[in-house]
Amino acid sequence: MNIGIAGLGLIGGSLGLDLRPLGHYVWGISRSPDTCLQAVAMGAVDVACLDSEMIPYLDKTDVVIVCTPIASILPTIATIAPRLQSSTIFTDVGSVKSAIVEPATQLCDRFVGSHPMAGTAFSGINAAKRNLFHQRPCVVTPSQDLEAMAMVRSLWESVGAIVYECSPEAHDRAVAWISHLPVMVSAGLLLACEQEVDGEVAQLAQNLASSGFRDTSRVGGGNPELGRLMAEYNQPALLKTLHTYQDILGSLISAIESGNWDAVQALLAKAQTARPLYVE
Amino acid sequence: MNIGIAGLGLIGGSLGLDLRPLGHYVWGISRSPDTCLQAVAMGAVDVACLDSEMIPYLDKTDVVIVCTPIASILPTIATIAPRLQSSTIFTDVGSVKSAIVEPATQLCDRFVGSHPMAGTAFSGINAAKRNLFHQRPCVVTPSQDLEAMAMVRSLWESVGAIVYECSPEAHDRAVAWISHLPVMVSAGLLLACEQEVDGEVAQLAQNLASSGFRDTSRVGGGNPELGRLMAEYNQPALLKTLHTYQDILGSLISAIESGNWDAVQALLAKAQTARPLYVE
Repeated sequence: MNIGIAGLGLIGGSLGLDLRPLGHYVWGISRSPDTCLQAVAMGAVDVACLDSEMIPYLDKTDVVIVCTPIASILPTIATIAPRLQSSTIFTDVGSVKSAIVEPATQLCDRFVGSHPMAGTAFSGINAAKRNLFHQRPCVVTPSQDLEAMAMVRSLWESVGAIVYECSPEAHDRAVAWISHLPVMVSAGLLLACEQEVDGEVAQLAQNLASSGFRDTSRVGGGNPELGRLMAEYNQPALLKTLHTYQDILGSLISAIESGNWDAVQALLAKAQTARPLYVE
Repeated sequence: MNIGIAGLGLIGGSLGLDLRPLGHYVWGISRSPDTCLQAVAMGAVDVACLDSEMIPYLDKTDVVIVCTPIASILPTIATIAPRLQSSTIFTDVGSVKSAIVEPATQLCDRFVGSHPMAGTAFSGINAAKRNLFHQRPCVVTPSQDLEAMAMVRSLWESVGAIVYECSPEAHDRAVAWISHLPVMVSAGLLLACEQEVDGEVAQLAQNLASSGFRDTSRVGGGNPELGRLMAEYNQPALLKTLHTYQDILGSLISAIESGNWDAVQALLAKAQTARPLYVE
């Protein structure tokens, strides 16, 4: 196939690295000339340009995968779609779906939303690597266009992803729990620690922090712009999880305040039992 | 030296594995016959018994390191101390210090509190390994007995730990921030997710949970009995951090509710800046 990748960061670059060896012609666009050069040099794309107009065989494109940050997904589709034949299928990799799928479907006839749950601690084209999606979950949202859906689904399966089909709303509620809420919970931990006013205790906390603190604070100490976009584009679902979290935390605090240690242990035992349902 | 280790789990066993090659004679006691046999077989101790009375050279013991769970530290000292010469120094490895140091000092003249910040995902003698304390922080609490303090300090330094001296109160406040609060914050995340009532969303959340959820939920999904003991023995300091955390979470939620995305981003940026102060 002739595949376009708009946005050559970690996700776009890694997709290119996996798709080209499968025999596809892959073009890419990026806002940065350096990124274009790097993407070609590392073999993530056959050709990369700042402007899609410059792409050879542009009008023969079968599918475009939009891999830009959330806020640029719709503007990118609005710019590229009119230049391609109307049979071209579009998909994205945005971490929210309700705010994307409906308006994107207005911009191009054959849009199917996607969200691969894959990442590393690093971002950008230099972090791109093969097999990033192997055995990772990937959501694909429903469409009236069954052919487009099947194609997007098989695209993700071809790079090793495990595809789950669900509505944009179900997706957004699920990722609020397991992706967006953890960011806020974890950032809150760092912000709370910074409230310690006793200099000796604050310094000691920094000296003693170990692997438990490292893990619990990791996603909260990540890119603030990404965290903001998650909140902005998934506000209602995120707020619902945050309010539930506040209630649960209140129950834990009440049990500790009243010295009901059996209740504390029972809550922690419930948490221990729950975790293997989510992660190994 | 002649060193006793009371409690042959991960910490006690690992200490023995590091101390014997330094030329010390190391005896151990455990409640479990299997653990005694295993500790000897793996070279963590020269001899291990169920009862300290059976230990050869018991009356020549220079220092006893109590490596039992928190609730057993004081009873263990009360049992062993009367059988040893009064010059024997005692220390412990408990994760709280205020509840231990003062009463332990009543039970034996030469007590110095310790807390090595070291661990693995596993526990028990079979998880014991060499160099567990290498480059890890270890708190030692002050004592009038400067000789005993210097000895306990050099013991930890001999196994590679970085020793910090601080009061039991400062220790307990610091570990509330970086060790006990994270457990409650992380357990709260798991408990909140379990509140999702829509079966499809709940199943999807489990399917999509990835590395971010794994890290944020790790310490909250740990041993409930340990978590309960942390809360029970460090109640006032933990509650203070939990109330601060509630306030901070409230600020984050307010910013998200009011759609003040710049404020959300500013808070997340503050969290990102703070994290390297605690962990690499």
